[in-house]
Amino acid sequence: MIAFDRAVKFEEVDAANIVFFARFVTYAHEAMEHFFGGLDGGYAGLILTRRVGFPAVHVDIDFKAPARYGDVLRIETRVARLGTRSAVLWYRMHHQDGRLACDLRHTVVTTDLRTLTSCDMPADVRALLSRHLEPPA
Amino acid sequence: MIAFDRAVKFEEVDAANIVFFARFVTYAHEAMEHFFGGLDGGYAGLILTRRVGFPAVHVDIDFKAPARYGDVLRIETRVARLGTRSAVLWYRMHHQDGRLACDLRHTVVTTDLRTLTSCDMPADVRALLSRHLEPPA
Amino acid sequence: MIAFDRAVKFEEVDAANIVFFARFVTYAHEAMEHFFGGLDGGYAGLILTRRVGFPAVHVDIDFKAPARYGDVLRIETRVARLGTRSAVLWYRMHHQDGRLACDLRHTVVTTDLRTLTSCDMPADVRALLSRHLEPPA
Amino acid sequence: MIAFDRAVKFEEVDAANIVFFARFVTYAHEAMEHFFGGLDGGYAGLILTRRVGFPAVHVDIDFKAPARYGDVLRIETRVARLGTRSAVLWYRMHHQDGRLACDLRHTVVTTDLRTLTSCDMPADVRALLSRHLEPPA
Repeated sequence: MIAFDRAVKFEEVDAANIVFFARFVTYAHEAMEHFFGGLDGGYAGLILTRRVGFPAVHVDIDFKAPARYGDVLRIETRVARLGTRSAVLWYRMHHQDGRLACDLRHTVVTTDLRTLTSCDMPADVRALLSRHLEPPA
Repeated sequence: MIAFDRAVKFEEVDAANIVFFARFVTYAHEAMEHFFGGLDGGYAGLILTRRVGFPAVHVDIDFKAPARYGDVLRIETRVARLGTRSAVLWYRMHHQDGRLACDLRHTVVTTDLRTLTSCDMPADVRALLSRHLEPPA
Repeated sequence: MIAFDRAVKFEEVDAANIVFFARFVTYAHEAMEHFFGGLDGGYAGLILTRRVGFPAVHVDIDFKAPARYGDVLRIETRVARLGTRSAVLWYRMHHQDGRLACDLRHTVVTTDLRTLTSCDMPADVRALLSRHLEPPA
Repeated sequence: MIAFDRAVKFEEVDAANIVFFARFVTYAHEAMEHFFGGLDGGYAGLILTRRVGFPAVHVDIDFKAPARYGDVLRIETRVARLGTRSAVLWYRMHHQDGRLACDLRHTVVTTDLRTLTSCDMPADVRALLSRHLEPPA
């Protein structure tokens, strides 16, 4: 598990004054960028230099408790499933008092960005994902 | 079913040059605002005057084909399930050639925005949702 | 002058419950895409096929009256100045009661997107801009 | 001067593959939140508890060099002018090699968020702004 603290920003709420639901998907992507930060060149290096990306094929979200401006979410990123070319990233976003705000599963497929077709997972990516493989109970 | 055409905007792509996956959730919300446009005062009237909202409790997304700048998506909104206080809105987003770009299910709960607790569904909202109830086969 | 109506979206406000100031720049860009809509292939055709873009070199904004969710802004786009390779687009965003919400000047330079260097303005672009040249009094 | 490092995010580019120009306004706001971070309760405390905000009345931006995904901008925040109720925040955003990407001036007015009318600047805000008053040469 890799944790990442994310403060809600001033402009991320909606007219109901809670964090707009689509933002949690953006938070998940930021947590993924943070998760891949340990790789040489980070996520940006994968995308820009190695031309390997991880487009989503599926996302599943449970919204548990609303978040507001001023909140800081602790996002725990785990790997729920690891396939040959695909993986399920699993983000649990907690309020500071421990309450779960959002539980998000994100299925990605390793993709050659030159052709937008699936490709084998680079060895360092697989090693990182394996290290954090913690399927839900 | 209510259809809504949505052009991909210049700034909605990501560094892999395809529409950023979180945007599809925003598109779904826009389609919902359009769907509720038939109500007196529209969605804004519900939120601002009647103080009734529809926060998401669950979202489930299948990404089928990437979209790019220049694409126009046709979003078909249906109601997949209608409960007492909750409903499942179902959006199918198509490319102009008919290919499905994204299939998104969005479970909402009728909520009193003053207290952020669930409440009964207003009669005009229920009537609108019933009219477009088309459970997936 | 070309007019464009833009409804404030649910998620465009901030924690002070007014439209977040950066969004007005996005509105200006949408108004520009609408303004260029009359060209063959529209703005997307310029960017994607002809590989000509109009990056901003300067933006100047006066915020006159806050906007809120539920508001619809009428954006009037004019050309305040037309140079050889550059132009100043001028957007006046009005509330429905006529009050000015935002006045924005946007200096763009015709740019070859393959090299990101300035280039001559295509003839159809110049003709369109000339037609709407209305320098401020 | 208070410095703030901001990595360009995956979804902040546009279809021309450079950071979308409106994002620089968002970056400025983030730098402002960081700048006010030294106050008791931070910017969120001002907005949510003390109900004092700083809506923009004017923004002036020079775009100097495009930024891309993978870039990290160093944003230097200074106070260019300090009035009774207003101030000009001045952000210089640099690439890592020192080149200036964006120079942005942001005029704000101290505002009572309950009434959306201007009000006196709280003493701690004034003290912070004074400490970083560095008018451009």
